[in-house]
Amino acid sequence: MTQPLRIALAGLGTVGVGLVKILQNQRDLITARAGREVVLVAVSARSRSKDRGVDLSGFAWEDDPVALARRDDIDLFVEVMGGEDGPAKAATEAALTAGHSVVTANKAMLARHGTALATLAEAQGAQLRFEAGVAGGIPVVKALTEGMAGNVMTRVIGVMNGTCNYILTEMEQTGGDYGDILTDAQRLGYAEADPTFDVGGFDAAQKLALLTATAFGTQVDYDAMEIEGIEKVTLTDIRYAMDMGYRIKLLGVASRTDTGVEQRMQPCLVPAESSLGQLESVTNMVVLDGDGSGRTAFLGPGAGEGPTAAAVMADVVDIARGAQVPAFGVPVAQLAAPVPAKVQTPAPYYLRLSLADQPGALARVAAALGQAHISIDRM
Amino acid sequence: MTQPLRIALAGLGTVGVGLVKILQNQRDLITARAGREVVLVAVSARSRSKDRGVDLSGFAWEDDPVALARRDDIDLFVEVMGGEDGPAKAATEAALTAGHSVVTANKAMLARHGTALATLAEAQGAQLRFEAGVAGGIPVVKALTEGMAGNVMTRVIGVMNGTCNYILTEMEQTGGDYGDILTDAQRLGYAEADPTFDVGGFDAAQKLALLTATAFGTQVDYDAMEIEGIEKVTLTDIRYAMDMGYRIKLLGVASRTDTGVEQRMQPCLVPAESSLGQLESVTNMVVLDGDGSGRTAFLGPGAGEGPTAAAVMADVVDIARGAQVPAFGVPVAQLAAPVPAKVQTPAPYYLRLSLADQPGALARVAAALGQAHISIDRM
Repeated sequence: MTQPLRIALAGLGTVGVGLVKILQNQRDLITARAGREVVLVAVSARSRSKDRGVDLSGFAWEDDPVALARRDDIDLFVEVMGGEDGPAKAATEAALTAGHSVVTANKAMLARHGTALATLAEAQGAQLRFEAGVAGGIPVVKALTEGMAGNVMTRVIGVMNGTCNYILTEMEQTGGDYGDILTDAQRLGYAEADPTFDVGGFDAAQKLALLTATAFGTQVDYDAMEIEGIEKVTLTDIRYAMDMGYRIKLLGVASRTDTGVEQRMQPCLVPAESSLGQLESVTNMVVLDGDGSGRTAFLGPGAGEGPTAAAVMADVVDIARGAQVPAFGVPVAQLAAPVPAKVQTPAPYYLRLSLADQPGALARVAAALGQAHISIDRM
Repeated sequence: MTQPLRIALAGLGTVGVGLVKILQNQRDLITARAGREVVLVAVSARSRSKDRGVDLSGFAWEDDPVALARRDDIDLFVEVMGGEDGPAKAATEAALTAGHSVVTANKAMLARHGTALATLAEAQGAQLRFEAGVAGGIPVVKALTEGMAGNVMTRVIGVMNGTCNYILTEMEQTGGDYGDILTDAQRLGYAEADPTFDVGGFDAAQKLALLTATAFGTQVDYDAMEIEGIEKVTLTDIRYAMDMGYRIKLLGVASRTDTGVEQRMQPCLVPAESSLGQLESVTNMVVLDGDGSGRTAFLGPGAGEGPTAAAVMADVVDIARGAQVPAFGVPVAQLAAPVPAKVQTPAPYYLRLSLADQPGALARVAAALGQAHISIDRM
């Protein structure tokens, strides 16, 4: 394998530019690790004239990412444009159809079309990799597809959205209300103008859907996930949780149950002193339970130019080395059809109720819970 | 790759038997992940007649592990006998010489002979893998050789010996003396009859030497490591540390400095509330600093049949998939000759002194420290 690996890069935002920097600054190291040169051949982005702080003059330019993906002088297409459908999906399909492997950071596209794109990749003998799409610089997709390959996985849990974690941590530390902290976060660039994708839990849910498929060998089933965001978490909830020794985190839980696979993304109480409870801001943490390895945990920066570009680069090195790993750990034909196991697992829940201060009020609540077969742990 | 991958297994202790169980119980899952059947062909161990709780009747038996390693009906040799030299090394060399890939859990052998064995593997076009040798079920070798391939690594730290961690934790929690806790640990099977290998820091140092080579692309240089065990840690040290908000852990630190690579394994004060400070018993934790990914951390069970066998199995699946990754992340010819940077980095140290209760005693200590250019942080 002395031929260089030739790359086309679609998307020149922070991640794309970060990848260009690694390729330009660490050429010898990457060549040593990859076993051959890794050469950027051509790029595409919305604006050709924008100054991005890196020299792009040595690369061919394509206005159309689909044309870029189809070039016959490349081996690998790197997609860091983003977007669930549209150009990202069209270009990814074009690259795979041309037999080019694809490395992407696009969790939204894969949460919707992951199974179909993996099917196309396999049919063409191409690789489809997405480490950068989940938990930034933490190599957790690789851990599941490769490092845990000797395990039957039983559960994946994770805190995987920095915006939510920032807002919840700030509410606790400053005593500010959800709305005020969100406004601050938007001003500081920690939250988007339309924050729904993050605070609604959808960003983290897309990541979890990919981990679920990879852990349990099932088709990606984002639609089956129960998703609840942090919009309804109040300062009162956070303070009550603190009094009980807990913090509130937007927690993803995917479990294999007797009836199928359960996927939930929702605000949860976690012990304040636990590793999960102590996570702050952009740090992500994923905890994997396997029958052999037991419980392992992975933490690190979940976003940002450096971690995300490094994760893309690692996938590129894998492909340069000739790695042949199915996108979700097993061939698509062997991915089980997902059987959603909605709330099959009994789980402890936190309820906050305001009751009229009169005799019998609590008794009626307790009776209602009892009739629904819900027991009370503490009050 | 529809041909089965044929394995020979040398060593039928807990790890070897654990691997046999995975191959027997998870055959379909392993086949799906590996993309082909993984078949155990032949085994070797000291005693043929011993009942190990698994059915070995379907496998050829070899009394001599070297003969096993040379068999021409295998593709891969799994070495879980242990031992720095002797049969383990002879058999590993025989396997590689025959062009068979090798998966081993033998950190002692690799800490001494890793560079030479990797050279032999490369010359023969064979793979040499050792995930199970470092931090049990935590895929940290894979994280360094593959997951972090887009980073320049700057530091690796880790708590990687369960026996030491058990003894230190028990001393703190029960107030027992080092000698008594060690005796208890030996009785409970947490420490060997000759505990030197663990409590002297050598086991953890071997693991760190392998991570150092992999992180920084240097030849394995176990001899250059500064190693200090936990034998001299007293209950008084532990209590003083607690008073200051610290716990004492046997901590490995490998850093890239301006002058070379520094490797140390020694008891250290770590903040009691940190993830490292909270580690108990057999749990291992490894923290990686990279220029792109920032700080990532990996934790999980560092020993035991389940985690170690699962780590061996993951390496086997990689090889079945046709992975081609240099043992230490880059080809041996490109591993830098190690330049030990002994104590080049200024580091805070904890000193405990008993002084005569007379005027000037402390002044003389302070003066001596000052003359040696050592400043005092707190007393």
